[in-house]
Amino acid sequence: MGKRYTVPARQGLAVRLKKGEQVRVINTHGTQVVDSWAFNAADPTEFMSMEHMRQGINGIIPKPGDGLMTNKRRPILTFLEDTSPGIHDTIIAACDIWRYRNLGVEGYHDSCTDNLRMALVAIGFPVAEVPSPFNLFMNIPVRPDHSIGWEPTVSKPGDSVTFRAEMDLVYAVSACPQDIVPINGAGLAPVDAHLEVLAEA
Amino acid sequence: MGKRYTVPARQGLAVRLKKGEQVRVINTHGTQVVDSWAFNAADPTEFMSMEHMRQGINGIIPKPGDGLMTNKRRPILTFLEDTSPGIHDTIIAACDIWRYRNLGVEGYHDSCTDNLRMALVAIGFPVAEVPSPFNLFMNIPVRPDHSIGWEPTVSKPGDSVTFRAEMDLVYAVSACPQDIVPINGAGLAPVDAHLEVLAEA
Repeated sequence: MGKRYTVPARQGLAVRLKKGEQVRVINTHGTQVVDSWAFNAADPTEFMSMEHMRQGINGIIPKPGDGLMTNKRRPILTFLEDTSPGIHDTIIAACDIWRYRNLGVEGYHDSCTDNLRMALVAIGFPVAEVPSPFNLFMNIPVRPDHSIGWEPTVSKPGDSVTFRAEMDLVYAVSACPQDIVPINGAGLAPVDAHLEVLAEA
Repeated sequence: MGKRYTVPARQGLAVRLKKGEQVRVINTHGTQVVDSWAFNAADPTEFMSMEHMRQGINGIIPKPGDGLMTNKRRPILTFLEDTSPGIHDTIIAACDIWRYRNLGVEGYHDSCTDNLRMALVAIGFPVAEVPSPFNLFMNIPVRPDHSIGWEPTVSKPGDSVTFRAEMDLVYAVSACPQDIVPINGAGLAPVDAHLEVLAEA
């Protein structure tokens, strides 16, 4: 509570939130994509679901005021505040070892999928599946011809997004280790982000 | 093989395909949305995944020539042919009882989620989760302001899509029972569709 956590570059972090508490994700350096997930603390098979959320918000990018829906179609988080330009992604899967294999990486490569699993195991909350993440600050334009782009984030240093927990939940993030496709800025350098847990308003 | 199946209005159907076989989904009346899924026959935890597919095809709507990727980032189906105008959906979850509850339905309502589960159980292939479906003929425009629309399908009677199995797999479809939001045509009337299994080309 009131605590500030570092999400180290290329790594993940999970925290438990009580209903009413708030969490803020800070893009400290302004160039970092942060994959995020939320799970019902009482039932890991209920989680924030991008495909259900898009129906709920009638769109592909949530904004302040929106309820972020689970796979049981109820809000698990409310989006309270966004000091960034509001460009986030809900359509792309978390990176994983197969993504990096397809990009030509031969050895191990950190991934948001592995980061989520390790962060959840670290707090004693293992899950069977990795839901599609809410990719904070990720810039994937959908063009009129239905193609997509892979663009650097447009956020500025210190930009943040804030959510309120609508149930007791586990919130997890990963500072995306993607260093081949330039989503984390043209420099291809994953960096730290930060996370704050705030008292009930 | 060579068999034509009816997918009754509001119901589901699952078939097993061998690698190389083809499956064709026919929008017999031209107004019906058909949710579809594919699972690796040897491992139900590997399945066609919209969030991974969108990365693979660099877009939100697959077209002939595209490989439709699993959550392990390899093609499970190849999209061979599309005689429809090419408008399908990959961003919306299958309808479920919570969707109809939120739309004001009080009793039971058929849903693509239940249809998938029942169709898979009927062939002895139960799964733990319901992946986000490939919604054939479903017309969900994504607008420049990131909002989405819920529009009637633009397909014509007899339009079809054809896929080749890239591994032994279970293919499942649901003739969407949505009769409150007009995605199945302005008449709000779910109707039959058909499915054909074709020999290896």
